[in-house]
Amino acid sequence: MCRWLAYSGTPVLLETLLYRPRHSLIDQSLHARLGAETTNGDGFGVGWYTDSRDSPGVVRDTSPAWNNRNLREIASHVRSPLFFAHIRASTGSAVQQTNCHPFRHGRWMWMHNGAVTDFHRLRRDLALAVDPVLFSGIEGSTDSEIMFHLALTFGLDQDPPGAVARMAGFVERLGHEHGVEFPLQMTVAVTDGLRTWAFRHSSEGVSRSLFFSNRVETLRRLHPDVTFLREVSDETRLVVSEPLGDLPGAWTEVPDGSCFVVQPGTDELREFTPVALQVY
Amino acid sequence: MCRWLAYSGTPVLLETLLYRPRHSLIDQSLHARLGAETTNGDGFGVGWYTDSRDSPGVVRDTSPAWNNRNLREIASHVRSPLFFAHIRASTGSAVQQTNCHPFRHGRWMWMHNGAVTDFHRLRRDLALAVDPVLFSGIEGSTDSEIMFHLALTFGLDQDPPGAVARMAGFVERLGHEHGVEFPLQMTVAVTDGLRTWAFRHSSEGVSRSLFFSNRVETLRRLHPDVTFLREVSDETRLVVSEPLGDLPGAWTEVPDGSCFVVQPGTDELREFTPVALQVY
Amino acid sequence: MCRWLAYSGTPVLLETLLYRPRHSLIDQSLHARLGAETTNGDGFGVGWYTDSRDSPGVVRDTSPAWNNRNLREIASHVRSPLFFAHIRASTGSAVQQTNCHPFRHGRWMWMHNGAVTDFHRLRRDLALAVDPVLFSGIEGSTDSEIMFHLALTFGLDQDPPGAVARMAGFVERLGHEHGVEFPLQMTVAVTDGLRTWAFRHSSEGVSRSLFFSNRVETLRRLHPDVTFLREVSDETRLVVSEPLGDLPGAWTEVPDGSCFVVQPGTDELREFTPVALQVY
Amino acid sequence: MCRWLAYSGTPVLLETLLYRPRHSLIDQSLHARLGAETTNGDGFGVGWYTDSRDSPGVVRDTSPAWNNRNLREIASHVRSPLFFAHIRASTGSAVQQTNCHPFRHGRWMWMHNGAVTDFHRLRRDLALAVDPVLFSGIEGSTDSEIMFHLALTFGLDQDPPGAVARMAGFVERLGHEHGVEFPLQMTVAVTDGLRTWAFRHSSEGVSRSLFFSNRVETLRRLHPDVTFLREVSDETRLVVSEPLGDLPGAWTEVPDGSCFVVQPGTDELREFTPVALQVY
Repeated sequence: MCRWLAYSGTPVLLETLLYRPRHSLIDQSLHARLGAETTNGDGFGVGWYTDSRDSPGVVRDTSPAWNNRNLREIASHVRSPLFFAHIRASTGSAVQQTNCHPFRHGRWMWMHNGAVTDFHRLRRDLALAVDPVLFSGIEGSTDSEIMFHLALTFGLDQDPPGAVARMAGFVERLGHEHGVEFPLQMTVAVTDGLRTWAFRHSSEGVSRSLFFSNRVETLRRLHPDVTFLREVSDETRLVVSEPLGDLPGAWTEVPDGSCFVVQPGTDELREFTPVALQVY
Repeated sequence: MCRWLAYSGTPVLLETLLYRPRHSLIDQSLHARLGAETTNGDGFGVGWYTDSRDSPGVVRDTSPAWNNRNLREIASHVRSPLFFAHIRASTGSAVQQTNCHPFRHGRWMWMHNGAVTDFHRLRRDLALAVDPVLFSGIEGSTDSEIMFHLALTFGLDQDPPGAVARMAGFVERLGHEHGVEFPLQMTVAVTDGLRTWAFRHSSEGVSRSLFFSNRVETLRRLHPDVTFLREVSDETRLVVSEPLGDLPGAWTEVPDGSCFVVQPGTDELREFTPVALQVY
Repeated sequence: MCRWLAYSGTPVLLETLLYRPRHSLIDQSLHARLGAETTNGDGFGVGWYTDSRDSPGVVRDTSPAWNNRNLREIASHVRSPLFFAHIRASTGSAVQQTNCHPFRHGRWMWMHNGAVTDFHRLRRDLALAVDPVLFSGIEGSTDSEIMFHLALTFGLDQDPPGAVARMAGFVERLGHEHGVEFPLQMTVAVTDGLRTWAFRHSSEGVSRSLFFSNRVETLRRLHPDVTFLREVSDETRLVVSEPLGDLPGAWTEVPDGSCFVVQPGTDELREFTPVALQVY
Repeated sequence: MCRWLAYSGTPVLLETLLYRPRHSLIDQSLHARLGAETTNGDGFGVGWYTDSRDSPGVVRDTSPAWNNRNLREIASHVRSPLFFAHIRASTGSAVQQTNCHPFRHGRWMWMHNGAVTDFHRLRRDLALAVDPVLFSGIEGSTDSEIMFHLALTFGLDQDPPGAVARMAGFVERLGHEHGVEFPLQMTVAVTDGLRTWAFRHSSEGVSRSLFFSNRVETLRRLHPDVTFLREVSDETRLVVSEPLGDLPGAWTEVPDGSCFVVQPGTDELREFTPVALQVY
């Protein structure tokens, strides 16, 4: 339903990854190959850190990414070591800025591709489980924003993978109580400006596509002619809904039921299993 | 914070009342005289019935009314016997279509000028009191939309003034429980396409301005030269946040703590007192 | 690059043709089959006559048609005997309201699918040929709007097919002078509220698709079960960029180099040949 | 009709000047004191250099500046040594992105407050005088954009004050030929990323307000407690439509008929007189 990209590494102009690749996110807004829909034209967002100690800047708009001039301006003039970008395909909820990703809370950013099945039936119970202090920060009407607030409620600040596991477990338990067979379908990226966690999970075991770029050192040996690879650090990494091009050996699929962690030092691929927390 | 207008009577082009009067609602979007703010530029909406048995059409946009060309087109080509129009001045909540008035549910429309004091603190408890079946219909983040859903929850369909009294009473009781001295400030208009109820109330007794137009028969005698008055039926009536012009004798202020009912036959001015319903 | 629809006949709610058909214009905004692009998401417009003696109402917006709620509201509440609808796929010019179709001048409306080749090189000379009195009415930056103003300059009011032929001839002559081999590619619809002229032409002889609906009487015999056909008059007619569904026998392709005239009485299919008027 | 601000000096977050001052440009969008209108809500723009050798980034939007969240995000995350900001009050021309300031051409930016009198009558002749190579770059319908293209035509790149003088002279001569008594009213800022020229002129001698900030050294002595003054270089300078606050001694009015040049080294106040170039 959506497509996203999470970058981490040597500071680059956002356009380097948003516009230049053959199958860039902008191209995916019109011609996604692996998504549920080929068109992702119901708004977009980009969030970037200037410095990992600060809250990120987040620009979101309801127009399609492919024709938005302000996005192009920002992408060609803002440089960042860690940024998120998202293009949206609404499945019914309003096309409004507060429904666009990424969502931000303090120094945290969150973006999502997927859906809570029968969300309209579960929405109230999901919202009630959000920490009352956080409740008033919900501005839109998406499942994604509530999932973020649930993760915040369940300890995102202390234990990101654990909080996301508890969020997913809660959504699934609640869904089952309402007779929903496969309540959750998600690829989520979340960051604190220093590390990024990317999750791929679905209740049914058939989740949306997700890929990470392979180690820059390896890619450089394979493709010594690719300028970008020569200019970025060994720690540079991308996680994307679908590959940005056809460079052989560039991408590894994140398996269903796993979490990929981009962090200083060695990145990690871990298992991910929802934790069925008792909330009420 | 906002300004609104409710028309009922002989079918007219919307522009007759939205654009032509000297101090029209469009003029009020830039130069309100009696409002909390002179500028009401954070979106607008218009809702009209073609036929009182159908659901009304509702067009809302986040741009200022004064420069919106589509509003002008609709106003000069749509004719209606009963319509609402609203211009918004946000006090912080997002400028998005789903926060613009009027709100619609089935054949009902609702618009509001005012505020729930400390809404961010009360929002969760207010939302929880909404009928779970209606909860998923909440798309925006305003107090006004929740007030509407509370009125629907408390029986708007059967007893409009009673439902609004219970809504107001509930908001006030909840506010007091949270230590808010004067929780509610409202002028509300609600209609089912046949009758319109306009309420003026504030917990503090200092409410926003509200006026109704005097009887057409009387005005015709006072101003035999005013074309509009000769062309509309005796039952034609306006309720407005502030007068649309300076015609002597044209307007009567709705007293604080009252409800003005526009209906087939004789219109009525009644007392309005919130009813402190026990909800939980 | 765009898709359009022109309706003429028994007054209907716009939604009857904009939303209800299986392959409606709204569906075409995401999934056009015969267009240069499958996505037409760079704005839309709808123009309708309430009465053929008046200037039409025209509502245009830069957002995609498929997610625009105001379009849906208007379509489900406005009834018209003659209306135009257009969805846009920009080929570079700005996504702005003044670049959306239909364009209006007095009681005339104009919409277009196609392009002037190398428009940026011809734009100035084309603009100079516009009647100086009309020049200041040009608000956007499209070839389509200038084509309309040229047709107005060349006598649209007196002789619509002649004016369009002179416009096309002028564009082609100017293009050739600038070394453009095939300067024009167009399907145009123009109406005065009473009659509609639909043109299909390209300099290369390979023009965009265009269809008209067959005679209602014939269709009724073929499809006695189709409600819409029973409810509309014999004179009801549609001209569309691509068929709205798969009803056998429903559509006839307008041949390249022709003009289809929808008018009171018998509609006509005529030849269309550009006339190479000497302008300077 | 509009308000603007041009900053040059120590790199700062845009918000330092756009949001923080008591009577900031954002405040002026609702409550201008010295403008023709108190409300400047018909769009805004901000253009900034990251490096004076590059083309600036320009973000423009049709919504009011006061409620635009993306502007706030950009302002709180983008740092620049030279930026322009503009808020618009349209006098009739369309509210569209391409009519918002600043305008950009290569490394040049231009913004304007004022008007060409009877522009609709002069528009064609003004447009014809634009270098044909530049003509196709005109995307909107404002006098301001054409003034910029005329200045580019008349040598902005080589001699900015001379080009602006020729532009103003041409507008005035053309206006007089059309019987317009006072054809031009302007405060213009133009920059190449290194130097900024600010012009104040009106044919009638009654021009819009314009101010520059006094020398930082002087202000620091007057107001040793103002943090901002301690943090910026001696060369830091602002030119504004109206003062951003009430700090005594902070502002000097630019006299009518003059040009203020902000540049490395000593800034200059010069006389400005239009030059009535013969164009045709």
